[in-house]
Amino acid sequence: MFKVNPHYAKLPGNYLFAEIARRVRQHAATHPEADIISLGIGDVTLPLPPAVVSAFEQGVREMGDAKTFHGYGPDFGYDFLRQAIRDGDYAPLGVEVALDEIFVSDGAKCDVSNIQELFSDDAVIAVTDPVYPVYVDSNAMAGRAGVYDNGRWSRLCYLPCNAENGFVPPLPDRPVDVIYLCYPNNPTGTTLSRAQLQTFVDYAREHGCLIVYDAAYKAFITSDAPHSIYEVPGAREVAVECCSYSKTAGFTGTRCGYMVIPREVCGQGDGGQPVSLNAMWKRRMGSKFNGVSYPVQRAAAAVHTPQGAAQCAQNIRYYLQNAALIRSALSDMGYEVYGGVDAPYVWLKTPVDSWAFFDRLLTQAHVVGTPGAGFGPCGEGYFRLTAFGDHDRTAQALQRIRNLG
Amino acid sequence: MFKVNPHYAKLPGNYLFAEIARRVRQHAATHPEADIISLGIGDVTLPLPPAVVSAFEQGVREMGDAKTFHGYGPDFGYDFLRQAIRDGDYAPLGVEVALDEIFVSDGAKCDVSNIQELFSDDAVIAVTDPVYPVYVDSNAMAGRAGVYDNGRWSRLCYLPCNAENGFVPPLPDRPVDVIYLCYPNNPTGTTLSRAQLQTFVDYAREHGCLIVYDAAYKAFITSDAPHSIYEVPGAREVAVECCSYSKTAGFTGTRCGYMVIPREVCGQGDGGQPVSLNAMWKRRMGSKFNGVSYPVQRAAAAVHTPQGAAQCAQNIRYYLQNAALIRSALSDMGYEVYGGVDAPYVWLKTPVDSWAFFDRLLTQAHVVGTPGAGFGPCGEGYFRLTAFGDHDRTAQALQRIRNLG
Repeated sequence: MFKVNPHYAKLPGNYLFAEIARRVRQHAATHPEADIISLGIGDVTLPLPPAVVSAFEQGVREMGDAKTFHGYGPDFGYDFLRQAIRDGDYAPLGVEVALDEIFVSDGAKCDVSNIQELFSDDAVIAVTDPVYPVYVDSNAMAGRAGVYDNGRWSRLCYLPCNAENGFVPPLPDRPVDVIYLCYPNNPTGTTLSRAQLQTFVDYAREHGCLIVYDAAYKAFITSDAPHSIYEVPGAREVAVECCSYSKTAGFTGTRCGYMVIPREVCGQGDGGQPVSLNAMWKRRMGSKFNGVSYPVQRAAAAVHTPQGAAQCAQNIRYYLQNAALIRSALSDMGYEVYGGVDAPYVWLKTPVDSWAFFDRLLTQAHVVGTPGAGFGPCGEGYFRLTAFGDHDRTAQALQRIRNLG
Repeated sequence: MFKVNPHYAKLPGNYLFAEIARRVRQHAATHPEADIISLGIGDVTLPLPPAVVSAFEQGVREMGDAKTFHGYGPDFGYDFLRQAIRDGDYAPLGVEVALDEIFVSDGAKCDVSNIQELFSDDAVIAVTDPVYPVYVDSNAMAGRAGVYDNGRWSRLCYLPCNAENGFVPPLPDRPVDVIYLCYPNNPTGTTLSRAQLQTFVDYAREHGCLIVYDAAYKAFITSDAPHSIYEVPGAREVAVECCSYSKTAGFTGTRCGYMVIPREVCGQGDGGQPVSLNAMWKRRMGSKFNGVSYPVQRAAAAVHTPQGAAQCAQNIRYYLQNAALIRSALSDMGYEVYGGVDAPYVWLKTPVDSWAFFDRLLTQAHVVGTPGAGFGPCGEGYFRLTAFGDHDRTAQALQRIRNLG
């Protein structure tokens, strides 16, 4: 019988969200009168902005007319969208990016999990702890993570983030090939300053590492933290950057994102020669991908118009108001809270372990959040609340938590 | 410096379509008066059918209203689409498929290239020759193809298809793990009968192989050939099937497809235990994919409505009329022609080598086709013309070829 990839068998069950759903279902069944409010999901709730809907509809109409119909599009995205990204997302930061360094995709989740196909099988991977699990799982499926035991993979290099270090990851304590960084961060809601990011870029340059920088939440930045790793000198030589319309413009169900791979980023081939990651990704996407839906690319381009950008910014402000409310209410109640200023996530220190806190909130306040332990061992003792809910419902959830005393 | 995947360096340049484009550009530059007609591309030209556009627009409008907005969808596709596929594509064939055996994706190209992630690194792969290059390239990138030399990969098992064997691939002459089959076939335009497909299913069952069956062109079948490999007894144990809306409904720029993985299909784990490919794919898609755009799934579901199906069938008939015209005109001129009855591709025997024939058509008739050599060594001596063009322009191209004498 044909043999399968043996690394899948090493993956632990995807317990976190399944377990949360199970406990919520059980609570709902035993308390049918309970009005459960979820501050657990990382999904947006506001609809697509009108300017985006209008461009999306126009794109669909074009597909219905032979004169304006679009068949196969460019594998790396239409130039109208790549130009809009360059001019809308990078030029205002003073960052120069060439069109052929921008690759449009159906979302950052695909990009951050597919990029590892370009690494050698024995590459050593560093991730923060807690971490967005996709970085870990995609490398584990390719056999780079080693063996999973007691919540940790044997071959990964973990960079612990906690209140003590202000959620700023330490540099790796051993040689690594690739470092995944997500800022603003999911789940901690904190971000890195220019100087902190510079430390990582300098380290990567000195040690020949690649940084995979996930900037999916950059639209939420209100401080003077960098929106792109390319604001930091030297980053073009060592970093690729993944961005997404999911949280910026409510595209979680519409699906569009992009990756930037500067021409300078090179790894080492088998013969020791430098190999351009940009060229490899072109080959990867040309061979294994067929572009993003044309109307979706039209919708994404509208995000970068003055009207679209203003409407998206208004939605971001709505969510950030929720985040501010969560922060202030919880602080007021005596909780230690982090994040929520440059991100839609608030990370709080729990008085009991994170699952016990989850149960207390669920059963006594009918409020759902996410236990920090689900994001890695260093997430234990913390809890994530999201700002993507309705304002009034969020306020109501906070009042209930207050009433717990 | 971090090491890259060494297998990319083994890939030959993607010369075929680049070389075609180069020669066409050159001809256009030296003959600015030439009215070039392309029968070379595999892309549709008719717009999306009205029923599909209407559902697509409705889906977009729902995204603009908080009451009907859709955030993250199910990783494996909405049930409304999976039900439409089950009831529209399989039930009429007498084939039972469960909803959780259907995985909606952004296109068959992604599916046929991602499925190899589930195979062990040393799996031996069989492909037909000529072949759609994606099967080969995706395995080559993962290191399963060996070394490329003189048009052939050292570790692949090639199944030669030519006029002598009626383009019916022979069974592998050595042990293989996976067999890729595409019927109706790109590029030969021929398909397999039930009995011929049964031979492969029986072989796979006897030898423990997996069949990756690409049925992207099934909507073009006019003979009594099977539309699905699951029409053949035993196939549920050994075959996965990839389908696409690209050619069925003109979705090349809209992007939607699906894969069927029956629960019975098992490979062997490291400990010799059977491992369900369906469970592995669920894990793969749950970890590395975030679903297909909601409005696109609404558009795809409309393909399965009575109105949508009738409009798609009308477009297919239009293309098949082109194919019939190409067949009869070329036969009339004395060419040996194949395919074009159950597929949008006509495959003809060339009087000279396939690139010389390309040049003759381009320079003397201003008509562009695809040299068979581009699809593999056994494609030499053949040439592909596609039926996706305008009817009048196709007739005009044929008249010009006739005038060549």
